[in-house]
Amino acid sequence: MKLYADDLKPGQQFPFEEYTVSEAEILDYARQWDPVYIHTDPDAARDAGLGGVIASGLHTLAIYQRLAVAALWSRMAGGAGRSFDVRFCRPVLPGTTLTGHARVDSVTPRGDRGDAAVLLTAALTGDDGEAILRISVDCILPLREPATMTRRVT
Amino acid sequence: MKLYADDLKPGQQFPFEEYTVSEAEILDYARQWDPVYIHTDPDAARDAGLGGVIASGLHTLAIYQRLAVAALWSRMAGGAGRSFDVRFCRPVLPGTTLTGHARVDSVTPRGDRGDAAVLLTAALTGDDGEAILRISVDCILPLREPATMTRRVT
Repeated sequence: MKLYADDLKPGQQFPFEEYTVSEAEILDYARQWDPVYIHTDPDAARDAGLGGVIASGLHTLAIYQRLAVAALWSRMAGGAGRSFDVRFCRPVLPGTTLTGHARVDSVTPRGDRGDAAVLLTAALTGDDGEAILRISVDCILPLREPATMTRRVT
Repeated sequence: MKLYADDLKPGQQFPFEEYTVSEAEILDYARQWDPVYIHTDPDAARDAGLGGVIASGLHTLAIYQRLAVAALWSRMAGGAGRSFDVRFCRPVLPGTTLTGHARVDSVTPRGDRGDAAVLLTAALTGDDGEAILRISVDCILPLREPATMTRRVT
């Protein structure tokens, strides 16, 4: 059964599965979308004192999205992102296992549109449990029963 | 010759090349990173009244990064993104040709660290020249001559 905005409550959490990022995937992603040597050239990255390549921030964000789809978006009846803010807290090294969770911050029905503006925050953590990426997402999700929900819930 | 933060001036613009996004690429990207039917299933997306698949926002952002690397980041001596805010203004349909530009907003040297915090804003536009994605980026870039630049430039 699909979830609607009506089913989301502030404070509700959606835990992520784990995802281990390989050096090969870091190189593949960056060579296509973010071809800067710290992401694409292990020797040059080592020479720059990084110990090797680090994942592109876009790649880390793509992994976040994949985990968020499995945890949340694939269960929703619909929806579309409007904007997000991302903070990259620490570099992602090859072999790191990422996980985390998303949390519902607020659900605000939009008048007669039959949908709601939903604010979520999420974090990805690394092997030591410390945050690697933090994101705030502003999205529009359909309401199952638009008429029953007319007040902002926070 | 590589560019340093010293070489960037507020108001300076870096125009992007063009990039045409195909339906095959929209499907490939989304199936790996954002497997939601509006990005992965042309028939289901049509049934939902979208006229076909639309690109994942992450995919559009990856295209932005690829264009920004070609226009700017590949010319810089180094640097790392700290955070960004993205707004998705309109859906990206198969066959859309994206372009745009990045603009330097401010360059703020960071004390004795030999680098500067640089704020940039950028937009991607579609075939009609209207904005599809807007992004603000906060990054750290090395200074060529840290000692010569001690005041915030905005």
